[in-house]
Amino acid sequence: MQQNSLRNLISIIAKLPGLGRRSARRIALHLLQHKELMHKLSESIISTAKEMKFCEICNNLDSVSPCAICSSSTRDKSLICVVEGVADLWALERSRLYNGLYHVLGGTLSAINGTTPESLTIDKLKRRLVSNIGEVIIATNATLEGESTGHYIASLVEKAGIKATRLAHGIPMGAELDHMDDGTLTIALKLRQLF
Amino acid sequence: MQQNSLRNLISIIAKLPGLGRRSARRIALHLLQHKELMHKLSESIISTAKEMKFCEICNNLDSVSPCAICSSSTRDKSLICVVEGVADLWALERSRLYNGLYHVLGGTLSAINGTTPESLTIDKLKRRLVSNIGEVIIATNATLEGESTGHYIASLVEKAGIKATRLAHGIPMGAELDHMDDGTLTIALKLRQLF
Ligand SMILES: [Zn+2]
Ligand SMILES: [Zn+2]
Repeated sequence: MQQNSLRNLISIIAKLPGLGRRSARRIALHLLQHKELMHKLSESIISTAKEMKFCEICNNLDSVSPCAICSSSTRDKSLICVVEGVADLWALERSRLYNGLYHVLGGTLSAINGTTPESLTIDKLKRRLVSNIGEVIIATNATLEGESTGHYIASLVEKAGIKATRLAHGIPMGAELDHMDDGTLTIALKLRQLF
Repeated sequence: MQQNSLRNLISIIAKLPGLGRRSARRIALHLLQHKELMHKLSESIISTAKEMKFCEICNNLDSVSPCAICSSSTRDKSLICVVEGVADLWALERSRLYNGLYHVLGGTLSAINGTTPESLTIDKLKRRLVSNIGEVIIATNATLEGESTGHYIASLVEKAGIKATRLAHGIPMGAELDHMDDGTLTIALKLRQLF
Protein backbone atom coordinates (compact mmCIF):
# COMPACT_ATOMS: atom_id res chain seq x y z
CA MET A 1 0.00 0.00 0.00
CA GLN A 2 3.01 2.27 0.31
CA GLN A 3 3.89 3.39 -3.20
CA ASN A 4 7.42 3.12 -4.54
CA SER A 5 8.14 6.85 -4.45
CA LEU A 6 6.99 7.07 -0.83
CA ARG A 7 8.84 3.90 0.17
CA ASN A 8 11.95 5.36 -1.45
CA LEU A 9 11.53 8.69 0.38
CA ILE A 10 11.18 6.84 3.70
CA SER A 11 14.38 4.84 3.03
CA ILE A 12 16.30 8.01 2.22
CA ILE A 13 15.06 9.82 5.35
CA ALA A 14 15.89 6.75 7.46
CA LYS A 15 19.55 7.14 6.38
CA LEU A 16 19.83 10.54 8.09
CA PRO A 17 21.70 10.57 11.41
CA GLY A 18 19.55 9.79 14.45
CA LEU A 19 16.54 8.63 12.44
CA GLY A 20 15.16 5.10 12.15
CA ARG A 21 12.40 3.63 9.98
CA ARG A 22 9.68 4.69 12.37
CA SER A 23 10.70 8.32 12.63
CA ALA A 24 11.31 8.35 8.85
CA ARG A 25 7.72 7.18 8.28
CA ARG A 26 6.41 9.93 10.56
CA ILE A 27 8.46 12.60 8.82
CA ALA A 28 7.44 11.43 5.32
CA LEU A 29 3.76 11.46 6.32
CA HIS A 30 4.12 14.88 7.90
CA LEU A 31 5.69 16.18 4.69
CA LEU A 32 2.89 14.72 2.54
CA GLN A 33 0.33 16.39 4.78
CA HIS A 34 2.18 19.73 4.66
CA LYS A 35 2.96 20.28 1.00
CA GLU A 36 4.21 23.83 1.56
CA LEU A 37 6.82 22.59 4.03
CA MET A 38 7.70 19.83 1.56
CA HIS A 39 8.40 22.33 -1.22
CA LYS A 40 10.33 24.64 1.10
CA LEU A 41 12.47 21.72 2.24
CA SER A 42 13.39 20.51 -1.23
CA GLU A 43 14.12 24.06 -2.43
CA SER A 44 16.19 24.78 0.66
CA ILE A 45 18.20 21.59 0.19
CA ILE A 46 18.99 22.51 -3.41
CA SER A 47 19.96 26.12 -2.67
CA THR A 48 22.05 25.16 0.36
CA ALA A 49 23.84 22.45 -1.63
CA LYS A 50 24.66 25.08 -4.28
CA GLU A 51 25.79 27.75 -1.85
CA MET A 52 27.86 25.90 0.71
CA LYS A 53 31.41 24.71 0.12
CA PHE A 54 34.28 23.42 2.21
CA CYS A 55 37.02 25.95 3.05
CA GLU A 56 40.20 25.08 1.13
CA ILE A 57 42.28 25.97 4.21
CA CYS A 58 40.43 24.64 7.27
CA ASN A 59 37.63 22.47 5.79
CA ASN A 60 34.91 24.56 7.50
CA LEU A 61 31.59 24.93 5.64
CA ASP A 62 30.85 28.40 4.31
CA SER A 63 29.52 30.15 1.23
CA VAL A 64 33.04 31.33 0.43
CA SER A 65 36.43 29.64 0.39
CA PRO A 66 38.63 30.55 2.28
CA CYS A 67 35.88 30.73 4.92
CA ALA A 68 34.97 33.86 6.89
CA ILE A 69 36.99 32.64 9.88
CA CYS A 70 40.17 31.98 7.87
CA SER A 71 39.97 35.36 6.13
CA SER A 72 38.92 37.38 9.18
CA SER A 73 41.31 40.19 10.15
CA THR A 74 40.33 40.09 13.82
CA ARG A 75 41.07 36.44 14.58
CA ASP A 76 44.30 35.23 16.19
CA LYS A 77 46.19 33.55 13.34
CA SER A 78 48.78 32.00 15.66
CA LEU A 79 46.20 29.58 17.12
CA ILE A 80 44.63 26.57 15.42
CA CYS A 81 41.91 24.53 17.09
CA VAL A 82 41.56 21.04 15.59
CA VAL A 83 38.03 19.60 15.68
CA GLU A 84 36.48 16.44 14.27
CA GLY A 85 33.55 18.05 12.51
CA VAL A 86 31.85 21.30 11.60
CA ALA A 87 29.27 20.73 14.39
CA ASP A 88 32.14 20.96 16.91
CA LEU A 89 33.36 24.20 15.33
CA TRP A 90 29.81 25.58 15.61
CA ALA A 91 29.64 24.54 19.27
CA LEU A 92 32.88 26.41 20.03
CA GLU A 93 31.76 29.46 18.04
CA ARG A 94 28.45 29.55 19.95
CA SER A 95 30.45 29.75 23.20
CA ARG A 96 32.19 32.93 21.85
CA LEU A 97 35.25 31.97 23.88
CA TYR A 98 37.71 31.18 21.16
CA ASN A 99 39.12 33.66 18.68
CA GLY A 100 41.73 31.66 16.78
CA LEU A 101 41.52 29.61 13.59
CA TYR A 102 40.20 26.07 13.16
CA HIS A 103 41.04 22.88 11.38
CA VAL A 104 38.19 20.47 10.69
CA LEU A 105 39.40 16.86 10.38
CA GLY A 106 36.24 15.41 8.90
CA GLY A 107 36.23 12.45 11.29
CA THR A 108 38.57 10.37 13.42
CA LEU A 109 41.19 7.75 12.67
CA SER A 110 39.53 4.36 12.97
CA ALA A 111 40.82 0.91 12.16
CA ILE A 112 37.23 -0.40 12.20
CA ASN A 113 35.85 2.14 9.72
CA GLY A 114 39.09 2.16 7.73
CA THR A 115 39.66 5.89 8.30
CA THR A 116 43.36 6.56 7.64
CA PRO A 117 45.20 9.91 7.91
CA GLU A 118 44.75 10.17 4.11
CA SER A 119 40.95 10.10 4.30
CA LEU A 120 40.98 12.97 6.85
CA THR A 121 42.38 16.47 6.27
CA ILE A 122 45.60 15.70 8.16
CA ASP A 123 47.91 16.45 5.18
CA LYS A 124 46.34 19.88 4.90
CA LEU A 125 46.90 20.41 8.63
CA LYS A 126 50.59 19.45 8.30
CA ARG A 127 51.06 22.15 5.67
CA ARG A 128 49.57 24.70 8.11
CA LEU A 129 52.13 23.89 10.84
CA VAL A 130 54.48 26.74 10.00
CA SER A 131 56.54 29.12 12.13
CA ASN A 132 53.85 31.74 12.81
CA ILE A 133 51.66 29.15 14.58
CA GLY A 134 52.27 29.32 18.35
CA GLU A 135 49.86 26.65 19.55
CA VAL A 136 47.54 23.96 18.27
CA ILE A 137 44.57 23.17 20.53
CA ILE A 138 43.40 19.63 19.89
CA ALA A 139 39.66 19.48 20.56
CA THR A 140 38.76 16.04 19.30
CA ASN A 141 35.91 14.32 21.15
CA ALA A 142 36.60 12.61 24.48
CA THR A 143 35.84 9.22 22.93
CA LEU A 144 38.36 6.42 22.41
CA GLU A 145 38.79 7.26 18.73
CA GLY A 146 38.84 11.01 19.38
CA GLU A 147 41.61 10.57 21.98
CA SER A 148 43.78 8.36 19.78
CA THR A 149 43.32 10.72 16.82
CA GLY A 150 44.27 13.58 19.17
CA HIS A 151 47.45 11.78 20.22
CA TYR A 152 48.38 11.16 16.59
CA ILE A 153 47.92 14.84 15.73
CA ALA A 154 49.75 15.99 18.88
CA SER A 155 52.82 14.03 17.77
CA LEU A 156 52.71 15.71 14.34
CA VAL A 157 52.37 19.15 15.92
CA GLU A 158 55.23 18.56 18.35
CA LYS A 159 57.43 17.21 15.55
CA ALA A 160 56.90 20.59 13.83
CA GLY A 161 58.18 22.29 17.01
CA ILE A 162 54.78 23.71 17.93
CA LYS A 163 53.02 23.48 21.31
CA ALA A 164 50.11 21.00 21.29
CA THR A 165 47.41 21.40 23.95
CA ARG A 166 44.10 19.72 24.52
CA LEU A 167 40.84 20.73 26.15
CA ALA A 168 40.96 20.12 29.90
CA HIS A 169 39.14 17.11 31.15
CA GLY A 170 35.98 18.51 32.47
CA ILE A 171 34.29 17.17 29.41
CA PRO A 172 33.01 13.76 30.55
CA MET A 173 34.58 10.70 28.91
CA GLY A 174 32.51 9.33 26.06
CA ALA A 175 30.78 12.65 25.41
CA GLU A 176 30.77 14.69 22.23
CA LEU A 177 31.62 18.39 22.09
CA ASP A 178 28.44 19.19 20.27
CA HIS A 179 26.45 17.95 23.33
CA MET A 180 28.22 20.22 25.86
CA ASP A 181 26.75 23.33 27.41
CA ASP A 182 28.70 26.60 27.20
CA GLY A 183 29.75 26.42 30.87
CA THR A 184 31.49 23.10 30.38
CA LEU A 185 33.12 24.35 27.20
CA THR A 186 34.35 27.45 29.04
CA ILE A 187 36.11 25.44 31.75
CA ALA A 188 37.54 22.94 29.31
CA LEU A 189 38.97 25.69 27.12
CA LYS A 190 40.41 27.75 30.00
CA LEU A 191 42.11 24.77 31.64
CA ARG A 192 43.51 23.34 28.42
CA GLN A 193 46.60 21.22 29.01
CA LEU A 194 49.81 20.27 27.18
CA PHE A 195 49.45 17.04 25.27
CA MET B 1 29.34 31.73 10.54
CA GLN B 2 26.27 29.81 9.50
CA GLN B 3 25.11 31.19 6.16
CA ASN B 4 21.50 32.19 5.57
CA SER B 5 20.67 29.26 3.28
CA LEU B 6 22.05 26.78 5.80
CA ARG B 7 20.37 28.52 8.74
CA ASN B 8 17.10 28.38 6.79
CA LEU B 9 17.55 24.67 5.99
CA ILE B 10 18.16 23.94 9.68
CA SER B 11 14.98 25.82 10.68
CA ILE B 12 12.92 23.88 8.15
CA ILE B 13 14.32 20.52 9.27
CA ALA B 14 13.69 21.48 12.92
CA LYS B 15 9.97 21.79 12.09
CA LEU B 16 9.70 18.08 11.22
CA PRO B 17 8.06 15.88 13.86
CA GLY B 18 10.41 14.57 16.55
CA LEU B 19 13.32 16.82 15.55
CA GLY B 20 14.78 19.73 17.51
CA ARG B 21 17.42 22.31 16.61
CA ARG B 22 20.26 20.04 17.57
CA SER B 23 19.17 17.07 15.51
CA ALA B 24 18.31 19.47 12.65
CA ARG B 25 21.91 20.81 12.72
CA ARG B 26 23.27 17.26 12.60
CA ILE B 27 21.04 16.30 9.70
CA ALA B 28 21.85 19.47 7.72
CA LEU B 29 25.58 18.88 8.21
CA HIS B 30 25.25 15.25 7.24
CA LEU B 31 23.45 16.29 4.05
CA LEU B 32 26.13 18.85 3.19
CA GLN B 33 28.77 16.20 3.65
CA HIS B 34 26.85 13.68 1.52
CA LYS B 35 25.82 15.60 -1.58
CA GLU B 36 24.54 12.50 -3.35
CA LEU B 37 22.11 11.79 -0.50
CA MET B 38 21.15 15.47 -0.55
CA HIS B 39 20.22 15.35 -4.22
CA LYS B 40 18.39 12.04 -3.82
CA LEU B 41 16.39 13.48 -0.92
CA SER B 42 15.28 16.63 -2.73
CA GLU B 43 14.39 14.66 -5.89
CA SER B 44 12.53 12.07 -3.87
CA ILE B 45 10.56 14.76 -2.02
CA ILE B 46 9.52 16.36 -5.31
CA SER B 47 8.50 13.11 -7.01
CA THR B 48 6.66 11.83 -3.94
CA ALA B 49 4.78 15.11 -3.60
CA LYS B 50 3.73 14.82 -7.25
CA GLU B 51 2.74 11.17 -7.07
CA MET B 52 0.87 10.86 -3.78
CA LYS B 53 -2.69 12.01 -3.25
CA PHE B 54 -5.41 11.51 -0.66
CA CYS B 55 -8.08 8.93 -1.50
CA GLU B 56 -11.40 10.67 -2.24
CA ILE B 57 -13.24 7.90 -0.36
CA CYS B 58 -11.19 7.01 2.72
CA ASN B 59 -8.48 9.75 2.87
CA ASN B 60 -5.65 7.19 2.65
CA LEU B 61 -2.48 8.26 0.82
CA ASP B 62 -1.85 6.52 -2.49
CA SER B 63 -0.74 7.23 -6.06
CA VAL B 64 -4.33 6.69 -7.21
CA SER B 65 -7.70 7.85 -5.96
CA PRO B 66 -9.75 5.83 -5.00
CA CYS B 67 -6.83 4.12 -3.27
CA ALA B 68 -5.77 0.50 -3.85
CA ILE B 69 -7.57 -0.61 -0.68
CA CYS B 70 -10.88 1.05 -1.61
CA SER B 71 -10.81 -0.38 -5.13
CA SER B 72 -9.55 -3.85 -4.18
CA SER B 73 -11.85 -6.72 -5.14
CA THR B 74 -10.60 -8.98 -2.35
CA ARG B 75 -11.31 -6.74 0.65
CA ASP B 76 -14.40 -7.01 2.80
CA LYS B 77 -16.48 -3.96 1.84
CA SER B 78 -18.89 -4.42 4.74
CA LEU B 79 -16.24 -3.42 7.29
CA ILE B 80 -14.77 0.06 7.86
CA CYS B 81 -11.95 0.65 10.32
CA VAL B 82 -11.72 4.29 11.43
CA VAL B 83 -8.19 5.49 12.24
CA GLU B 84 -6.76 8.90 13.16
CA GLY B 85 -3.97 8.97 10.60
CA VAL B 86 -2.32 7.16 7.71
CA ALA B 87 0.44 5.90 10.05
CA ASP B 88 -2.22 3.97 11.97
CA LEU B 89 -3.56 2.47 8.74
CA TRP B 90 0.00 1.40 7.87
CA ALA B 91 0.43 -0.17 11.31
CA LEU B 92 -2.74 -2.25 10.85
CA GLU B 93 -1.76 -3.22 7.30
CA ARG B 94 1.66 -4.39 8.52
CA SER B 95 -0.10 -6.72 10.96
CA ARG B 96 -1.93 -8.36 7.96
CA LEU B 97 -4.84 -9.09 10.29
CA TYR B 98 -7.48 -6.84 8.86
CA ASN B 99 -9.05 -7.17 5.44
CA GLY B 100 -11.80 -4.54 5.43
CA LEU B 101 -11.82 -0.91 4.33
CA TYR B 102 -10.53 2.12 6.24
CA HIS B 103 -11.50 5.66 7.01
CA VAL B 104 -8.70 8.08 7.90
CA LEU B 105 -9.95 10.95 10.07
CA GLY B 106 -6.91 13.19 9.72
CA GLY B 107 -6.71 13.87 13.48
CA THR B 108 -8.92 13.94 16.55
CA LEU B 109 -11.59 16.29 17.82
CA SER B 110 -9.93 18.76 20.17
CA ALA B 111 -11.30 21.84 21.87
CA ILE B 112 -7.72 22.99 22.54
CA ASN B 113 -6.53 22.74 18.93
CA GLY B 114 -9.90 23.85 17.61
CA THR B 115 -10.41 20.63 15.65
CA THR B 116 -14.13 20.37 14.92
CA PRO B 117 -15.95 17.56 13.05
CA GLU B 118 -15.78 19.84 9.98
CA SER B 119 -11.97 19.95 9.95
CA LEU B 120 -11.81 16.13 10.00
CA THR B 121 -13.22 13.77 7.36
CA ILE B 122 -16.29 12.97 9.47
CA ASP B 123 -18.81 14.21 6.88
CA LYS B 124 -17.28 11.87 4.32
CA LEU B 125 -17.54 9.03 6.84
CA LYS B 126 -21.25 9.79 7.42
CA ARG B 127 -21.90 9.41 3.69
CA ARG B 128 -20.24 5.97 3.80
CA LEU B 129 -22.59 4.71 6.54
CA VAL B 130 -25.01 2.97 4.17
CA SER B 131 -26.89 -0.34 4.38
CA ASN B 132 -24.15 -2.62 3.04
CA ILE B 133 -21.85 -1.70 5.94
CA GLY B 134 -22.18 -4.30 8.70
CA GLU B 135 -19.69 -2.94 11.23
CA VAL B 136 -17.46 0.06 11.87
CA ILE B 137 -14.35 -0.69 13.94
CA ILE B 138 -13.24 2.49 15.69
CA ALA B 139 -9.48 2.34 16.11
CA THR B 140 -8.67 5.83 17.33
CA ASN B 141 -5.71 6.07 19.69
CA ALA B 142 -6.15 5.20 23.38
CA THR B 143 -5.54 8.82 24.36
CA LEU B 144 -8.08 11.16 25.93
CA GLU B 145 -8.78 12.88 22.61
CA GLY B 146 -8.77 9.60 20.69
CA GLU B 147 -11.33 8.12 23.08
CA SER B 148 -13.67 11.10 22.97
CA THR B 149 -13.42 11.26 19.17
CA GLY B 150 -14.19 7.52 19.15
CA HIS B 151 -17.31 8.04 21.27
CA TYR B 152 -18.49 10.81 18.98
CA ILE B 153 -18.07 8.60 15.90
CA ALA B 154 -19.66 5.59 17.65
CA SER B 155 -22.82 7.63 18.24
CA LEU B 156 -22.96 8.61 14.54
CA VAL B 157 -22.48 4.98 13.49
CA GLU B 158 -25.16 3.70 15.87
CA LYS B 159 -27.55 6.44 14.72
CA ALA B 160 -27.13 5.03 11.21
CA GLY B 161 -28.18 1.62 12.58
CA ILE B 162 -24.72 0.09 12.17
CA LYS B 163 -22.73 -1.84 14.78
CA ALA B 164 -19.82 0.21 16.22
CA THR B 165 -16.94 -1.69 17.83
CA ARG B 166 -13.60 -0.62 19.17
CA LEU B 167 -10.24 -2.29 19.59
CA ALA B 168 -10.07 -4.27 22.84
CA HIS B 169 -8.19 -2.72 25.65
CA GLY B 170 -4.93 -4.44 25.56
CA ILE B 171 -3.46 -1.37 24.02
CA PRO B 172 -2.09 0.57 27.02
CA MET B 173 -3.77 3.89 27.84
CA GLY B 174 -1.96 6.88 26.47
CA ALA B 175 -0.26 4.88 23.73
CA GLU B 176 -0.48 5.38 19.99
CA LEU B 177 -1.32 2.61 17.53
CA ASP B 178 1.73 3.33 15.46
CA HIS B 179 3.93 2.40 18.47
CA MET B 180 2.36 -1.03 19.04
CA ASP B 181 3.92 -4.37 18.12
CA ASP B 182 1.98 -6.79 15.95
CA GLY B 183 1.19 -9.08 18.90
CA THR B 184 -0.60 -6.32 20.79
CA LEU B 185 -2.45 -5.30 17.64
CA THR B 186 -3.52 -8.94 17.08
CA ILE B 187 -5.09 -9.25 20.53
CA ALA B 188 -6.70 -5.83 20.39
CA LEU B 189 -8.27 -6.57 17.01
CA LYS B 190 -9.47 -10.09 17.91
CA LEU B 191 -11.08 -8.98 21.19
CA ARG B 192 -12.72 -5.88 19.75
CA GLN B 193 -15.76 -4.81 21.76
CA LEU B 194 -19.10 -3.09 21.14
CA PHE B 195 -18.89 0.64 21.77
ZN1 LIG C 1 38.56 28.23 6.76
ZN1 LIG D 1 -9.35 4.74 -0.10
